[in-house]
Amino acid sequence: MERDRETGTAGSPIRDRYTVDDILSPRSVAVVGASEDLTKFGGRILKSLVQHGFGGAIFPINRARQSLLGIQCYSSIAAVPAPPDVAVVAVPPDAVIDTIAALAAVHTGAVIVITAGFSDAGPAGARRESQMLAAARTAGMRIIGPNCLGLISPANNLVLCASPALFVPQLPQGALGLVSQSGAVMATIFDRAMARGVGFSHCFSIGNQADMELCDFVDFLIADPRTRVICTYLEGVKHPDRFLQTAQSAYRAGKPWLIVKAGRTASGAAAAFSHTASLAGSYEAFAAACRECGVLIMDDPDAMILLAAALSHDPRRSLGAVSVVTTSGGSGALTVDRLSDAGVPLVEFTDATTDALRDLYPPNLAGANPVDMGAALGGLATGVETQTMDAVMRDGRTGLVLAPITTAPDITKICENLVAGAQRATAAGYSTPYIVIMQPGRAGDQAREVLRAARSLYSDSLDEAIRALAAWQRLSRLRLLPEALKPAVLPARPAVEALDGAVDEAAAKRLLSSYGIPVNPGEVARDADDAERIAAGLRGPFVLKIVSPEIVHKSDVGGVVLGLQTAEDVRDAAADMTRTIERRVPGATITGYFVQEMRAGKLELFIGARRDPQFGAIILVGAGGILVELIRDVAVARAPLDTATAHLLLDELAIARLLHGYRGAALDAGAVADAVSRTSWLVHDLGDRFEELDINPVLVGDPHESVVAVDARLRLSSPGAGETRTMRSSL
Amino acid sequence: MERDRETGTAGSPIRDRYTVDDILSPRSVAVVGASEDLTKFGGRILKSLVQHGFGGAIFPINRARQSLLGIQCYSSIAAVPAPPDVAVVAVPPDAVIDTIAALAAVHTGAVIVITAGFSDAGPAGARRESQMLAAARTAGMRIIGPNCLGLISPANNLVLCASPALFVPQLPQGALGLVSQSGAVMATIFDRAMARGVGFSHCFSIGNQADMELCDFVDFLIADPRTRVICTYLEGVKHPDRFLQTAQSAYRAGKPWLIVKAGRTASGAAAAFSHTASLAGSYEAFAAACRECGVLIMDDPDAMILLAAALSHDPRRSLGAVSVVTTSGGSGALTVDRLSDAGVPLVEFTDATTDALRDLYPPNLAGANPVDMGAALGGLATGVETQTMDAVMRDGRTGLVLAPITTAPDITKICENLVAGAQRATAAGYSTPYIVIMQPGRAGDQAREVLRAARSLYSDSLDEAIRALAAWQRLSRLRLLPEALKPAVLPARPAVEALDGAVDEAAAKRLLSSYGIPVNPGEVARDADDAERIAAGLRGPFVLKIVSPEIVHKSDVGGVVLGLQTAEDVRDAAADMTRTIERRVPGATITGYFVQEMRAGKLELFIGARRDPQFGAIILVGAGGILVELIRDVAVARAPLDTATAHLLLDELAIARLLHGYRGAALDAGAVADAVSRTSWLVHDLGDRFEELDINPVLVGDPHESVVAVDARLRLSSPGAGETRTMRSSL
Repeated sequence: MERDRETGTAGSPIRDRYTVDDILSPRSVAVVGASEDLTKFGGRILKSLVQHGFGGAIFPINRARQSLLGIQCYSSIAAVPAPPDVAVVAVPPDAVIDTIAALAAVHTGAVIVITAGFSDAGPAGARRESQMLAAARTAGMRIIGPNCLGLISPANNLVLCASPALFVPQLPQGALGLVSQSGAVMATIFDRAMARGVGFSHCFSIGNQADMELCDFVDFLIADPRTRVICTYLEGVKHPDRFLQTAQSAYRAGKPWLIVKAGRTASGAAAAFSHTASLAGSYEAFAAACRECGVLIMDDPDAMILLAAALSHDPRRSLGAVSVVTTSGGSGALTVDRLSDAGVPLVEFTDATTDALRDLYPPNLAGANPVDMGAALGGLATGVETQTMDAVMRDGRTGLVLAPITTAPDITKICENLVAGAQRATAAGYSTPYIVIMQPGRAGDQAREVLRAARSLYSDSLDEAIRALAAWQRLSRLRLLPEALKPAVLPARPAVEALDGAVDEAAAKRLLSSYGIPVNPGEVARDADDAERIAAGLRGPFVLKIVSPEIVHKSDVGGVVLGLQTAEDVRDAAADMTRTIERRVPGATITGYFVQEMRAGKLELFIGARRDPQFGAIILVGAGGILVELIRDVAVARAPLDTATAHLLLDELAIARLLHGYRGAALDAGAVADAVSRTSWLVHDLGDRFEELDINPVLVGDPHESVVAVDARLRLSSPGAGETRTMRSSL
Repeated sequence: MERDRETGTAGSPIRDRYTVDDILSPRSVAVVGASEDLTKFGGRILKSLVQHGFGGAIFPINRARQSLLGIQCYSSIAAVPAPPDVAVVAVPPDAVIDTIAALAAVHTGAVIVITAGFSDAGPAGARRESQMLAAARTAGMRIIGPNCLGLISPANNLVLCASPALFVPQLPQGALGLVSQSGAVMATIFDRAMARGVGFSHCFSIGNQADMELCDFVDFLIADPRTRVICTYLEGVKHPDRFLQTAQSAYRAGKPWLIVKAGRTASGAAAAFSHTASLAGSYEAFAAACRECGVLIMDDPDAMILLAAALSHDPRRSLGAVSVVTTSGGSGALTVDRLSDAGVPLVEFTDATTDALRDLYPPNLAGANPVDMGAALGGLATGVETQTMDAVMRDGRTGLVLAPITTAPDITKICENLVAGAQRATAAGYSTPYIVIMQPGRAGDQAREVLRAARSLYSDSLDEAIRALAAWQRLSRLRLLPEALKPAVLPARPAVEALDGAVDEAAAKRLLSSYGIPVNPGEVARDADDAERIAAGLRGPFVLKIVSPEIVHKSDVGGVVLGLQTAEDVRDAAADMTRTIERRVPGATITGYFVQEMRAGKLELFIGARRDPQFGAIILVGAGGILVELIRDVAVARAPLDTATAHLLLDELAIARLLHGYRGAALDAGAVADAVSRTSWLVHDLGDRFEELDINPVLVGDPHESVVAVDARLRLSSPGAGETRTMRSSL
């Protein structure tokens, strides 16, 4: 049988033949292990495929049956009448490889492998996964999974999914795309969203991603005209570089990409690993990568879907301030407390809005936000909801209306009226988004039906809505960071030929200095007399530090003396220090005495950098000194970054307030940003040799320099090690 | 008609005759404005009263009808055949006073006034409320409300409530008592709880609390044998002293009192005020009062009910560590991330548990918490849930089991199995509490029915459960603070006869010193020569500060000089300062020069105190110096407090870590606690004259004193003003 697609892509590599687009538009689907028994995967898959209107050919494979659900059955894969575009496989793990080989033999385009027990189940499973993949690739066949639940495409009337949640008359369609590393999480999100009337374009469960991976699906959703917002449940990123590219494409396409990431914490990471063998990597580095590309991280799937649905009409909209319209003063008060906690501002109504509401409410409530419709002069369910909603949505200051609804004599009517008001405002061109919070239990079920039918967005949980709004506010501030501009006057490359392993402070500071990062002046002396000579050429007071390859924690053994006033003091201190060290660390090789000008800033920062195995060198900047022990005040970005990005990082810190006005006087934030950027270029330019850098403290507001690095540690890998690593990671 | 209760209480004041107990056991109830029309308050009240099995006499009042719902009607209040124990009134505001008078005339015991438009509606409404109250009190009649929704007592089969949420066949009974300042919030909480099978003993909507108030109802619930946990929605406290007494009683009775308080934030407080005219007062002071009495503050009604239900079997149980049992590895990973965020520890299973689970799971998952039942060797819905739940509940380290359930082929069976496991463990004496998280939408509805029927606690929201557990952890740490012990050697009373208004630093420090709080030595000089003389008697370096009634911000005008080394330097600085001040603040009266020994601590704190209009003097202690601008690190308690309580406060602070180990060396936390306690006694002993005190900075770890107050401001009221205020507040 001749196939159009083969003809069309004759010149391309066979294994790239089937795209997500192709898989979503199959002319035929084979269900291996098909059944009418809904306790079996093959039974549920067949039922959903038939039920939701797939228009192509279905080839159920079952050696014991002539037909299933009235569809002709085939006794083996070899017996199918034509090469299936897509096959779904849910056979026991041991049978998977033979099944894949048989499907390859009949020129199947792509296979969805539901079966688990591969790289998710230890080394033996991982070997099985490699074998399966090899069998598929030889024949140019694509694989989704294994250890997945398939896909749900309401937009294409195609359901290839084993979840019983899909046994419903009709799947709601919508503009949300969903990609999930967990099948159960996908089906649960889908079912939960369906209950509130929120629909999807396409949903993919991607499992172990043996072949097709996260970005194959996200790239498809970015290009797909029926998808406006992309939601993802993720455990770990498989291909960091591609992730960054895809994330940038999503941002440029104006499609918000929301990710709920499991494994943010140590216990979560352990749980995620035992689930789909995803190494979570460093969450900090992942978060930095997301921020850089405008991807929003959330922590709750329900809040993610609520936000995505709220965004779906106008994905680029910023949140702005919120108006609250409620049936209960008490509920209104609780709601504004929570908005205030989350830092979401309340609207102050325009005079026009206040005028429009004046005759509806008692004088002491007119113009107040929240609007307590329960206190309306005419009572609830009288149409006051329509007028209120209409007026508040027309208010130019309203970014979103939040409507917590409590039990009341006629909640159904109240919600009908609310919807009517929203429709009236929308018809007049004021399509302000709104979320109804349905607080009752079953007393609100009929009203929920009203909202679903009207496609009005609602949630049963104020918590969930507050989380969604707080996330929306973060999303509104996200920007795609531009490529980093290089600061002026950098060396061609860092001079590290002679360095290896733990680099001493003097050498580390020379490197910093060569990249234009101010350090306090100093020089390593040979002996006490040399120390005096060096001090005589510097400005006091002085610091003296021992230089010895055996001594890492210098101050613990008397290897640091501060506040030396004169060159003579320095000489005496060096002599004393020699005796102290000889006594406290017998056998230590003293290679020198580091004489430095002492500095005193108004604020201590630290600038650190380390290599993330997935996302490369990342820069950390934060509060230093005693603050390190009190607050985790750190901002993270990938290297390199320019001063504009460094300013964004600094502004994320709690100590930004101190930088911008320290007890009245601003410190030199520009100099700090410059130092951060230069540090990032240094570690970037160190390339594969870079392991770890810690500049701590960085003093800001010293009388002599705006910024000065007074201590630094650097660790490099050996020149050979980096290449080995690079080769491994490109395998 | 002779009434037993009147006989029994003949000697007591008439207005105290009817207690909450009496109101909950009426022999007869009159419904003023009764109707069969469910759009009317009187219609809904009559229907619920009849439907839920009230056994006493019902007197519907309706001049147009002979009977309603088959019950004989009366044309007027005067026509009722016997004095009603309780009447419910939902007539228009203008008709309330006449109705109250008529009810009083027939010797009604207590009236529930549903009608709004009283102190909740401005000054005219407040006058109407006073008149209504006067009419009731003359006749010794009690009032619940106005502006309330009535009461719901499943324990007594008595529903006197206008909410349509009560039109259900049966109200679930339970051990939770509920008191709500908002009627809509009460009915909504009730309906929402009912949907998850959680029941109540008694619920009260208390509205404006014109007569009967919060503590009348809470005191009843404390004494009520059918109530084990008390839940409250509160906008503001009416009688602070009684609140404290009631809170202590609840703690001593072992009944957790959970309060959701609206008006925590400025916008919430404004909304609460316009709702029931409740002045929220200072949230800090309220929170301090609650902590002192072991009352738990929460911010979400749904989470409050979930926690209360989880607590209701064993209200004194501490949370401990959590085991997670789930149908999905993804959901498990997300759950442990959230537990970790909330600081709730995960159980590490005992060997016995691991052994019990070993054969059920693949080797790479055995013994892991979360337990991913979705990866069980035998598959889901096979009974693995029963064995897993049983084993985990028996684990002595499990404080609670959290079971997030996703969509799965047979969720109903899975939940049946879970419940069977829980029942098995409980029967064996391991009644570990558990909460099922139902994450699907409608796919989980049948499973929810299973859980409801088994009275298994569940929530649709992981968020809500995490909030409840975090609150439970806080509750586990709450203790009733003992009465404060007085520190040794305090003066009989503070010497403030000569002081008034803003007290200068020298006088404030003398007061501190008289209470045993260390201050840096110093004396006020008349002129430059006197300053030199004083300095000669002190230890340098010195600080010099201008003393002038016109100058508040001394350092802004050159009125503070630090780091003076010698007595001569002090004299010169005083002379210079005189010229500077004359130039920069022409006409300022210089009354002296405060010469002090300069101090340098390792850590800066502040100790503050102010008068709360409701809860009296409160003490605030927190991080000082630059930390004030960075983190809100403050602990609050009511004065007076002893050193034991002061230590508890200090341990709440982020800087507790620094106190207990500052860069390796511990500071003298005992000395800080002593200073905090002494400050609290000082402001306590100042009584009504105290307004505000700010000791900032307090230096800890100075070489000369463990703790030293180096600056202080105090504001007192005039001797007469305090009495006036006291008289007003007792009105």
